[in-house]
Amino acid sequence: MDTDTPDLSAIRQAMAKTNELFNTEVFGNRNFAALDQIYTKDARILPPGRPMFSGRPEIKGFWFDIIRSFNAKSAVLTSLDVMPAGEGLVEIGKALLTAEPSGQPEVQWDMKYVVFWKQEDGQWKWHVDIWNMSV
Amino acid sequence: MDTDTPDLSAIRQAMAKTNELFNTEVFGNRNFAALDQIYTKDARILPPGRPMFSGRPEIKGFWFDIIRSFNAKSAVLTSLDVMPAGEGLVEIGKALLTAEPSGQPEVQWDMKYVVFWKQEDGQWKWHVDIWNMSV
Repeated sequence: MDTDTPDLSAIRQAMAKTNELFNTEVFGNRNFAALDQIYTKDARILPPGRPMFSGRPEIKGFWFDIIRSFNAKSAVLTSLDVMPAGEGLVEIGKALLTAEPSGQPEVQWDMKYVVFWKQEDGQWKWHVDIWNMSV
Repeated sequence: MDTDTPDLSAIRQAMAKTNELFNTEVFGNRNFAALDQIYTKDARILPPGRPMFSGRPEIKGFWFDIIRSFNAKSAVLTSLDVMPAGEGLVEIGKALLTAEPSGQPEVQWDMKYVVFWKQEDGQWKWHVDIWNMSV
């Protein structure tokens, strides 16, 4: 971070805020309206074992189903690299998902992801989001 | 394609050439040196169920192991969308992998992927490559 230009440093803070919103609001509080602040209007997600989902209504449906069916509790995202990409950014990161499926002990999954970020209405959001398991 | 600027149309042709090289040379002919023409020097791949691999030597090792252990025959890549990203491009695509594991009938896997493309020595190559299963 020391070698970041001030601009990139500010962008990283904005990105961290979006990533934290996903953890605390979507997973923690099950506030699915917060996904409007996280994904661009025409975002696409590519989840493992599923087809691609396009646009916020489909994306909201996906997370609603996943979080409820696994009783997911948190999704802690950690940026590993951020690459400038014109008006966007490409981020490589890792995610730790924690869930408490009914009648089972807590489970955790190590995932990794790539997100293509874009600005929408002045906010940095996920435009393309793909992930998979790390083990 | 009709609405592409001539530049993007030329880039798409270059991309298709790289993608085809992966299928015919790497999978078809097991010519792993061809990966030099496909991945940038400091590329990273994020395969499902594995950690991230960084740089061509690691990436070559990964594909060498996978292709031999599954007796993989082809990897047909189809671009679904290409988004300008500064000096790079972000591609969403699907892949059909065909393998003939020893003593088993042919198997096929439907995958989807996101690739962050960059130019290296005038060639369009994969700089970040992540994929997962579609079913």
